[in-house]
Amino acid sequence: MIPTITAFEQSPDRGKGQARDMRVRWALEEVNQPYAVRLVSFREMKEPAHLALHPFGQIPTYEEGGLALFESGAIVLHIAERHAGLLPNEPDARARAITWMFAALSTVEPPLVELEAATLLEHDKPWYRQRLLLLEERARTRLDSLSRRLGAAQWLDGDFTAGDLMMIGVLFRSKESGILNAYPNLSAYVARGEARPAFKRAFAAQLAVFTDTQRQ
Amino acid sequence: MIPTITAFEQSPDRGKGQARDMRVRWALEEVNQPYAVRLVSFREMKEPAHLALHPFGQIPTYEEGGLALFESGAIVLHIAERHAGLLPNEPDARARAITWMFAALSTVEPPLVELEAATLLEHDKPWYRQRLLLLEERARTRLDSLSRRLGAAQWLDGDFTAGDLMMIGVLFRSKESGILNAYPNLSAYVARGEARPAFKRAFAAQLAVFTDTQRQ
Repeated sequence: MIPTITAFEQSPDRGKGQARDMRVRWALEEVNQPYAVRLVSFREMKEPAHLALHPFGQIPTYEEGGLALFESGAIVLHIAERHAGLLPNEPDARARAITWMFAALSTVEPPLVELEAATLLEHDKPWYRQRLLLLEERARTRLDSLSRRLGAAQWLDGDFTAGDLMMIGVLFRSKESGILNAYPNLSAYVARGEARPAFKRAFAAQLAVFTDTQRQ
Repeated sequence: MIPTITAFEQSPDRGKGQARDMRVRWALEEVNQPYAVRLVSFREMKEPAHLALHPFGQIPTYEEGGLALFESGAIVLHIAERHAGLLPNEPDARARAITWMFAALSTVEPPLVELEAATLLEHDKPWYRQRLLLLEERARTRLDSLSRRLGAAQWLDGDFTAGDLMMIGVLFRSKESGILNAYPNLSAYVARGEARPAFKRAFAAQLAVFTDTQRQ
């Protein structure tokens, strides 16, 4: 039995890998777990069948037998716990890898998403320029800390883990904005993630949804 | 050996339980694990010794023998994994409880914190009233979904879990703002959390830091 995930039928990013199914696809590819994808429209995401799977009407979801999960962090952790390769065996190292997953989602992602949301939704508001400075400063505070901690290391704590997968997934989304350019070590860190064969397969798979849609 | 956590020497909330050590204290109390607390000043939080424990210079941290963790979500999960009482034994139910932890931190908390941050930091800006409407709508979208999913249930998925602890911890922070008043079932859910003996012990312990400081 292979798991089924959901993804946008028409991703707003047009296949740039910025939707949150990318992280789940990447984790599944890292552990060589085949998976099926069910595409959902924005209308379907707000309907009862999808809300039963995802109370907040978003993607991705994950179904495997009788189990249904949502939240990319929880899904990636579930995959990492059930397959070798994404979490260290040593208990303390495992707990630290999970800490980086939470740090990616709770501490680093919110200010980056807030900045992205403002550039999309508030760029025509009279307050936009002033707010942007505030938001950029908040995002940079987090990136400064992350860059200092990573230093010259390849990954955040020893070998590549689900913590790196999540952190790179978060940073990758902001690459296009240019905010990472001031952090050569973070840019190189993201590039190391992108160079992994599993990342490439996941990226190609989510891009194919868009190119296939265009072809019809 | 008992674990040591860090908390604010002078919490900005003056002991209202809104700092993130509250969630960790609550989890430790739920599993009857004694703990030590090291108080840190805002200055100390940005110094190398604390940054070695918490790369983003925040609280709480968690030290236990050679293990050092940060991020309240990761710490609560660590406690829940090593003690009975906060996660179901059945693997699917356990994965769903962890999903609610991520939902609390990644999906529900960010718009609530954003709203709180705006009322604190932007109330004197010319754009404040217009932005407030936008932020309130975003927060309500999440609360609407959560309220619909919880319905008339006691807890989010069967018995009380670390998922409820995290969600109630997040909602509790916003109680004072009044935004929960429109959701009687969420208000009752938070009240059920507050009524737990472990919550009460944790709350009293974090309040004591403030009252003790005042007494000096």
